[in-house]
Parts: sequence; structure tokens; C-alpha cells
Amino acid sequence: MSDATPRVVIVGGGFGGLAAAKALGKTNAQVILIDRQNHHLFQPLLYQVATSVLSPGQIGSPIRGILRKQRNTTVLLGEVTRVDSDRRCVFVNSLDREGVVVEYDYLILATGASHSYFGHDEFERFAPGLKNLADAVAIRNRVLKAFEQAEAEEDPRRHGDLLTFVLVGAGPTGVEMASAMADLVSRALRAEFRRIDPTSARIVLVDMGNRVLATFSEKLSAAAKHRLEELGVEVRLGHGVDHIDADGVMVAGERIASKTVIWTAGVAPSPAAKWLKAATDRAGRVRVEPDLTAPGHPEIFVIGDTASLAQDGRPLPGVAQVAMQQGRYAGTLIHRRIGGQPKPRPFRYFDKGNMAVVGKGFAVLESGRLGLSGFLAWMAWAAVHLEFLAQSSLRVSVFVQWVWTYLTGQRGSRLIVNHHASVSNDVRAASPSERQPIETR
Amino acid sequence: MSDATPRVVIVGGGFGGLAAAKALGKTNAQVILIDRQNHHLFQPLLYQVATSVLSPGQIGSPIRGILRKQRNTTVLLGEVTRVDSDRRCVFVNSLDREGVVVEYDYLILATGASHSYFGHDEFERFAPGLKNLADAVAIRNRVLKAFEQAEAEEDPRRHGDLLTFVLVGAGPTGVEMASAMADLVSRALRAEFRRIDPTSARIVLVDMGNRVLATFSEKLSAAAKHRLEELGVEVRLGHGVDHIDADGVMVAGERIASKTVIWTAGVAPSPAAKWLKAATDRAGRVRVEPDLTAPGHPEIFVIGDTASLAQDGRPLPGVAQVAMQQGRYAGTLIHRRIGGQPKPRPFRYFDKGNMAVVGKGFAVLESGRLGLSGFLAWMAWAAVHLEFLAQSSLRVSVFVQWVWTYLTGQRGSRLIVNHHASVSNDVRAASPSERQPIETR
Repeated sequence: MSDATPRVVIVGGGFGGLAAAKALGKTNAQVILIDRQNHHLFQPLLYQVATSVLSPGQIGSPIRGILRKQRNTTVLLGEVTRVDSDRRCVFVNSLDREGVVVEYDYLILATGASHSYFGHDEFERFAPGLKNLADAVAIRNRVLKAFEQAEAEEDPRRHGDLLTFVLVGAGPTGVEMASAMADLVSRALRAEFRRIDPTSARIVLVDMGNRVLATFSEKLSAAAKHRLEELGVEVRLGHGVDHIDADGVMVAGERIASKTVIWTAGVAPSPAAKWLKAATDRAGRVRVEPDLTAPGHPEIFVIGDTASLAQDGRPLPGVAQVAMQQGRYAGTLIHRRIGGQPKPRPFRYFDKGNMAVVGKGFAVLESGRLGLSGFLAWMAWAAVHLEFLAQSSLRVSVFVQWVWTYLTGQRGSRLIVNHHASVSNDVRAASPSERQPIETR
Repeated sequence: MSDATPRVVIVGGGFGGLAAAKALGKTNAQVILIDRQNHHLFQPLLYQVATSVLSPGQIGSPIRGILRKQRNTTVLLGEVTRVDSDRRCVFVNSLDREGVVVEYDYLILATGASHSYFGHDEFERFAPGLKNLADAVAIRNRVLKAFEQAEAEEDPRRHGDLLTFVLVGAGPTGVEMASAMADLVSRALRAEFRRIDPTSARIVLVDMGNRVLATFSEKLSAAAKHRLEELGVEVRLGHGVDHIDADGVMVAGERIASKTVIWTAGVAPSPAAKWLKAATDRAGRVRVEPDLTAPGHPEIFVIGDTASLAQDGRPLPGVAQVAMQQGRYAGTLIHRRIGGQPKPRPFRYFDKGNMAVVGKGFAVLESGRLGLSGFLAWMAWAAVHLEFLAQSSLRVSVFVQWVWTYLTGQRGSRLIVNHHASVSNDVRAASPSERQPIETR
């Protein structure tokens, strides 16, 4: 296809895909954004849903809401299963139909990443990971149920494994989860149980590396570790978990009995590389050209966690900032190409800095040569995250919630909801006879 | 059992159970409140979760949070399956154990109601009802997915049944749902689709009775109907649905093709009457004595939707106000009995009035001889509901959300989340060998 109006298909409505769509808002291209969720997820705050601070609705905003004023953009709910780069089309499983063909002139793959269990996929059953809202709600249910179960259990000898929480992986997610859980037990849950003492809960953070937040400077790593320990988190470094089952984990030959293990390590790329049959780095991410295109395909861009690109000899990290800047770059580049303008300079990431929060009123922050830990860094963290929350209504409600939680220790969303399985108009419930491939356009 | 400290077991943490627990807060009784959810649900606003205005966390508050300062009260998460009134104990299925025995000196059954499909339980599959947060989230998913599906469907002839929503039952829930859905399509979704026009969606409200909101005066019923029609809702009275399947409903011989049918009629009592082998009214509710006790059991109270009691010749309605006043009465009566004080006068319901909202800025209100419809009634509705929201933090966030939605038409929580099935520490996932009856106390 290729007529007057070129079509740009964006796969993924995360930070990268959304930035690309916005950069294309004022072009004469037709933009189709496809995502398997109806919402953009503000992933940096996902751990706050898992730890009951925020509601799912506070960090998820409908993609079509964000892009509603962009009249050239159509949003489709569906899962891309394949790319045919010769025919220039993607195949989409939509709600009730499979194999819908969507053609493109330009393609932007911003499909993100999922967990990696480092070859131990059998761990997943016992140690769920945290990538989307359903994961966060499932972990929230699990953590809160462990306390309920312990309260219902009158034999204190049985409380140990119920009140032991193991987090595997001490990157930002693991550290932020562990410290938020420490706050949860010491503040929100403290006075609410009669038979157990929630503050006796054991929170263990395990990592095979030698420090927490390994992407930060050694000094900040040490400050974060110190803070975690002050909060009562047991930090175990230098050994990964050797085994996980329903009753706990094995770490360096020691068994830690636990009914709740959470996986906060390991990132696996989305299957974009397979779709393109492209060369990847060791982690499985597509090695892209300096202009973010896939080698040999100047019409296909790969951005965010799905892409591998080195800058100044170091691979770019899988963070929101990189994805957003790459999305903006790809969108702008397509815009210029459509308009016949010269090619821009190669993509270059401008690193504004990195932050991680470690419990109430404490964060670590690194920006250029500046390293900061403590309350000031936490204020900066809160300001930046509020600023970036996509929808202004969310910003107000998150702010209100944070102030409330900060002052009272109370959490906003401590629900256990036993959700129904998906209902009959879900893709998986449709009978095969109802599904038929349909060509769009 | 019967020692120095009498034990009061309350089954159900709804409006009735919670009011009873609070009335017992300063007695020397030991109070155990058992609910199968960890949260008290502010049910009058449940339709706002189903229509994406509010997040589940905004209308659900953890019961143990509400009662945390009440040191004589223990909250247990579990489902009561049976009452043995001879042995004076209830049987509870807790998270991982079945048949836990909890003894009582006084028992308050406040177990509420669920849907009734009037003998057509096969309708449930196609027409889900709205009783708890999981229901509301499932309906929200379903409604939002219907629009997504229509947008993905390029053949406009296939949009009809996807964009037709049928609500069965024109009581408060049906009327409030229908008008909130009309607001949703005409305001929130309006500008967000490219291939469909959400305002073309058809919302049909069906009831076998001759008017909507039949418990209100005829004048207010007529005002509500008129308002619904102004909002674009088709109101079909005088005929129930004869049949429901995956493709729509049959009403008075006419087929209405619809992929989304919601059940807002019919209330079935909880099994409390069966537990007690007590006499019931036609609806299956336990006929209670004027002091709300079960006949022959001065130590067992039945309150709220589970109880049947006439006042001035008319049965009390199944509304939150009745449940709260009854809960308070039962708690106070037990308090007095424990203290050896004389019995209070029989329970008498003080009717503060009834309200139902019909879309943005319009409600009907009836209190004594006062009948009011329109904006003023809506202001009163909003004030009363904010006032009653259990937790003050919720009150702020709901208020912020309402103002936002009122001004912009935007909704706070328009997420489609494909929730995981319950995880392994759920009661249903535990293997039978792990479950063993355990006596408490």
C-alpha cells in the first residue's frame, strides 16, 4: 500500500508508542496504534498498586482518551501476533477475531518487555512478576490474603511462612516494592489485627549481584541498602534463588519458608525480534540502526525496551525516558520523511537522571555527576512522577492519595477482589467458528 | 459457651453488620465480624464503578481499617456456610481451611442479598448482575469491550448488536446504570472513536412493571422516565424479558439484538433462613420478631436484606438505611442485655427518604411528603452519599472525581483489565489435604 496518505502503524501504547503517536499528531499520515490493553500504564508506579497505595485507575489511562484530540489517529484493542515485512502488514488478534490484517507504510514496534525467569519458567507459578495491572492486583490480593490467613490461624507457629515475603531481584522494582511493603506492615496494617502483629512480618530482598540498585553509583546503592535495613527489610546479596516452590525459596543452601514470593528480576524482550527475524543482543532485543530502524528496513522502527542501541559504548537502559525520547525521534523522523525533509541526526539519548524511592520520604537520585539520597531526592521523585502522569485528573487524585498516605499511613486501595474470569465477549471465549480473518482497508 | 466475656459473632460487613459492630464497640463483649470480602462496599455507588466513573478502591474500604480502633473486635475473612443454633456456633470456610467452628453467645446475621433470575438461572451467563466489585469490574470490562469491538469492526452493519445495551429491571440500579451509560456514551466516549459514533449506541431499559422506580411516587416515576428518555434511553415497560441468549433478548415477542445485557432486577435473599430453618416471607427473607430476633432464638438477630419485618402494615424496604438502623438496634440491644438493662422498645424504622440519580445533575428524592426531582435533588443526593462514604480519604477522592467528571465528562476509571484467575493461596486452589476443620477458642 502507498497512496496519498501514508499509514503509520504503531504497536504498543507504552511510553515509546504513545510518544511516537503524539509526534505524528499533526502530520498528514494516518496513524493506527494497536495495543492489547485499552490503557497506557504508568509503569513506574505499578508497585504502588501492588502495595495498595494506589488504585489501578490512578495509574492507567485509556489510550484513546489520551489521543482523542488527535483526529488522524485510530486506536485498536488487539494483540499483534506477526509481522510480514515483505507484504508490509501486521496480523492482529482482536477481541473476537483472529488474524486481522493491518497494512502499513511505516511500522513502529514499541512492544516492551515481560519477565524473564532465566530459564526457570516453572518459578512463575510460585513467584508472579509485576508487569501489568492484572499482575499488580494479583500480587496485592496475594499479600493481603497472607495477612488475613495468618489472622485466621490461631496457632502462631504457623504464622512464620505466611508472614514472610520474599522478593527476588533488587533492581528498582524490587527495592521499591520491598520498601513499600515495609511501610505497609509498619504503618497501614499495624493496628488492624488482633491475633498477629503485622510488624513482625519478614521482608526478604534477594539478589545475586553484590548490591541493590546496581545501575546507580556504589554510594547510592549503599545508601539505599542502609535505608532498606532501617525499614526492617532483610537484604541478601551475592546469591540468587536456586529453587522456588509453594512453600518458599532456597537461597545459598538455606531454605526460607514463605507463602508469598514475588519476582522482581529479569526482563525478557517482546517477540519483535522473532517477527522481524532480526539480529539481537544477548538479551534478545533487536539491534537497531542509529536512526532506530531495523537493519534493511528503513520503514520499520524498533524503540524502547524492544530495541538494543549503544551510546558512548554502553547499551541504553530499559527505562521510560529512553522509550519516550526514541518514540518522539521515530515519529519526527517519519514526519520529516513524509514531508521530504532531510534526515535528522542519529538518535541520541539525553539522560535526565535516574531515581528510585526507598520507603516513605526517601529516594536516591542520580543525574549527571549529581548523586543525592534522602528526603530532597524523594521530593524530586514525587514532583517528577506527578508531572509525568498522563492525565491531569489522575495527577490530582494521586497527589491527594500520596498526601493522605504520607500523613496517616493509610492506604487507598487495600481491596481483595476475587475477579471473575473474563466474560464471553473476550477473545478466548469466542467459538472458533465466529473467528474469521478479515482484511482491513 | 458463656464465660465472663460474652462473644458476639456478626456475619456480614455490609451496612447492617458494620453498624452492629460499631454499636458494640464500647461494650465488654468480644466481637467477631466475619465477611467473605475484606472490604465494606458502598453499594449505592457500585453502578459508578460499572460505568467507569469511580475506581473500585473509591467505594470499597477494608473492614479491618474501619474497625481498627475498636480493640474488642476481630475481623475474619471467610465464608459462613452453616449455623448450628443448638451448639451456638457457625461454620466458616476461611482462605485455606474449611469448616472452622466459631462459637457465639449472640449471633447477628447480616448476610445481605444476591440476584434473583426469577427461576431463570440460565440467564445469568448472558446477563450478569451487579452485587459486588468483581461484578462491577466484569460489567465495566464488558461494556468497554463492546465499543472496542465495534471500532475494530469495519462493517457498520455489524455494529448494531455491539452497540446495543439492554438493562433488565428499572429499579434504582437499572435507572442509575442506564442514565450513567447514557452519560458515558454522550460525553466520555464521544470524541474517542474514529469508525463508530458512540452516541449512536442504543440503551434499552426493560421492566415488567408499568413504571420505573416503582417504589417512588407516580409523579417522580414519571419525571425519572421523562429524564431517561431525554438522555436517549429507550424505556420499555409492561413486559419482562422472555428469553436471553448470547445474541440478545426477547421482549414481548420482539427480538432486541444485543451483545451486552445486564441484569438489574430481582433480589434473592442470602441462605440465612435455611441456616436457621426459619419461617420466611415470599421472597425468602427471615420473618423476625419486633426486636429483630429469629423466632425462638432471642440470641440470634437477623437484620438488613436478610430480614422481613412489617411496619405500619408494609414490609420494610431492602435499603441501606434500614440495615444501618437495624444493625445499630441489634448492637444496642445486646449491649443492654449484657449489662442487665431493660429491653428497649421494638425496632422502628425512621425513614429519612429515598433517592435515585438519573444522569448528570438530575435526581429524584422522596422524603415524607416531600417529592423533588431535578438539580436540587441531585445536589442533595451527592451531599448525602459523600457524607456516608465510610472513609474520609475516599470522600475526598470521590468528590474530586465527581467534580472532574461533572465538568469535563471524563471518567476516572475506564480500564479493561483481564484479571488473572485467583492465585494459589485462595481457598478454591488449596488442595483438599491442606484443609482441615479447626476449632477456634
